[in-house]
Amino acid sequence: MSAIRYELIKTCKESGARLGRIHTPHGTIDTPIFMPVGTLATVKSILPEELHTMKAQIILSNTYHLYMRPGHDIVEQAGGLHKFMNWNKPILTDSGGFQVFSLGPLRKITEEGVQFRSHLDGSKHFISPEKAIEIENALGADIIMAFDECAPYPADRMYVKDSLERTTRWLERCIKAHKKPQEQGLFGIIQGGMYKDLRKQSAQEILQYDLPGYAVGGLSVGEPKEMMYDVLEYTTPFMPKDKPRYLMGVGSPDDLLEAVLRGIDMCDCVLPTRIARNGTVFTSQGKVVIRNATYARDFSPLDPECDCPTCKNYSRAYLRHLVKCNEILGARLLSYHNLHFLIKLMEDARQAIMDDRFLTFKKEFFKKYGYTK
Amino acid sequence: MSAIRYELIKTCKESGARLGRIHTPHGTIDTPIFMPVGTLATVKSILPEELHTMKAQIILSNTYHLYMRPGHDIVEQAGGLHKFMNWNKPILTDSGGFQVFSLGPLRKITEEGVQFRSHLDGSKHFISPEKAIEIENALGADIIMAFDECAPYPADRMYVKDSLERTTRWLERCIKAHKKPQEQGLFGIIQGGMYKDLRKQSAQEILQYDLPGYAVGGLSVGEPKEMMYDVLEYTTPFMPKDKPRYLMGVGSPDDLLEAVLRGIDMCDCVLPTRIARNGTVFTSQGKVVIRNATYARDFSPLDPECDCPTCKNYSRAYLRHLVKCNEILGARLLSYHNLHFLIKLMEDARQAIMDDRFLTFKKEFFKKYGYTK
Repeated sequence: MSAIRYELIKTCKESGARLGRIHTPHGTIDTPIFMPVGTLATVKSILPEELHTMKAQIILSNTYHLYMRPGHDIVEQAGGLHKFMNWNKPILTDSGGFQVFSLGPLRKITEEGVQFRSHLDGSKHFISPEKAIEIENALGADIIMAFDECAPYPADRMYVKDSLERTTRWLERCIKAHKKPQEQGLFGIIQGGMYKDLRKQSAQEILQYDLPGYAVGGLSVGEPKEMMYDVLEYTTPFMPKDKPRYLMGVGSPDDLLEAVLRGIDMCDCVLPTRIARNGTVFTSQGKVVIRNATYARDFSPLDPECDCPTCKNYSRAYLRHLVKCNEILGARLLSYHNLHFLIKLMEDARQAIMDDRFLTFKKEFFKKYGYTK
Repeated sequence: MSAIRYELIKTCKESGARLGRIHTPHGTIDTPIFMPVGTLATVKSILPEELHTMKAQIILSNTYHLYMRPGHDIVEQAGGLHKFMNWNKPILTDSGGFQVFSLGPLRKITEEGVQFRSHLDGSKHFISPEKAIEIENALGADIIMAFDECAPYPADRMYVKDSLERTTRWLERCIKAHKKPQEQGLFGIIQGGMYKDLRKQSAQEILQYDLPGYAVGGLSVGEPKEMMYDVLEYTTPFMPKDKPRYLMGVGSPDDLLEAVLRGIDMCDCVLPTRIARNGTVFTSQGKVVIRNATYARDFSPLDPECDCPTCKNYSRAYLRHLVKCNEILGARLLSYHNLHFLIKLMEDARQAIMDDRFLTFKKEFFKKYGYTK
């Protein structure tokens, strides 16, 4: 039996949004869900206890980064990623593909795999589908991603076609290399850039393989939002109803709801913690750039509708002071709030699906949040 | 009645170490005590809740820094420092003197006060004893320090004598300027550099004023440790038994115990959090520089004898990984441990005084910690 099992609870009568559960070796998660990113085996500035408190159910960690530092052998020797970082709930690892391809001129792609130089010290490395899975097996996440190529945007059709076909061949090698199918579920990734016919081709190729879940990759890479929604809307109907669907690298509140509307179950992004460290937060009334002078004497909470500890205990004036002074506590408090905000948003989305009013919920949220559509 | 009242519980029969309590408007603290430093209204990387958990009873904050950012008027408008930073236990503020004098060529001392340029933007400022107390009154700490001059080390006798006499005259002005003696206790500061006769002169001058507490300033400024202990040992006997005694700026485990041995009740220092952010920790077996390669595969806790959450939940290998990657969580976990270590050390010291075995306790600690004396 596979390590991962998806259970579809219901589909919203107002929309294509799905309510479900994913059962993993480290527990069950409710979908649709937002997954905080813990790149280097830590969700930046946040403790696992705090992730529990904000009701995070699963986190993502990055294979490329952990391969570089501290090295997957050290994580394996520690007893795996869960034990290493003191997080006993589900983890998903990406394959490192996205990071390696982002290295640009530092990497060279062949059929065998990718040769690249470390972003840290310039040392030479080679990652193949087999190597990626070996690393992911060592890290021990509940869900592991196939080694794919994420084509950039824009990219010409021929490049994208070659790339997606290679991704299919690499998936087959990943499946063969996977040593722990009972403990870790391998997800395949649909590519195809912004070309609908190539999305269809990739979906048909990837979905030939019976895997416990599938992802949509290569979106949110710089294209206009409407294009992303359009490609996504075209792609998800190819995907099976009895398997989880993961949209990679998406994390703004509007993108999350647009993805859920189109039948996506899982999303991840560094956005909430990254913008928090720069002093920007999501609130029920839209984004707030807390370092602006206008908040210097604003003694109200970040978001009056939020019940997170940051909003309950601290004023905008204090948070602005921390951010202006580059105090670590500022990054902590804002990161907590932003993660809490997205997790709560998805919790509310689940309730709306349950109540067959997801479309209405989304409209209400957008109106309040300040989106014009 | 003064805002601050000291209660001497007992003096150790083995040594001059004192066990006591200080009653303040925000609660009672047990002495001897170590006070974590929250320079900019935050103990760097640590939440107030965590300070409670590690049993911190009082923290220190810096007047100069808060005057610069966010400005004492903002803190006052927020309802005072306690409310601004969400810390409902006692706070002590220094007077800004030490920071201003540390600015070196950026400042000019006159009888009236100190003219200086901001370390942030070069803007011109003037702080007098009256201004320092005005700021401290606005911040609203339980204990506020007089505006003094801390002479550097080395400094010639004439300079130190002039300086300590000015400090006495400034103390008188501070007392007159103090608007809230019922709510905030003003402490005087004994100076005199490394000259015993000048320490005696300063003590005699400062102690003429009936204040709720007195500090020893101008030590731990670069002099050899033995010299500091010697000057301290000479100075504390001048100080009254019924008032708290505060040694400013001291925070290594050995210095804390040497200070307590000489009858000191309160100490503060940025050392534990500063070295933590650089990856160095105190342990029961001495200092550990966690970024060293030797800990890369060390899956044991930082300090096997420590019961703090960092030691209970994380390995040296994980903490080293975080520090090497400049992850905020590394600074958090190590800062927590170091503060917990010093707070626990002082708790153990109090028990040892209660049991009339402080000298024995100190010897045992030093032996284990790796000091040769």
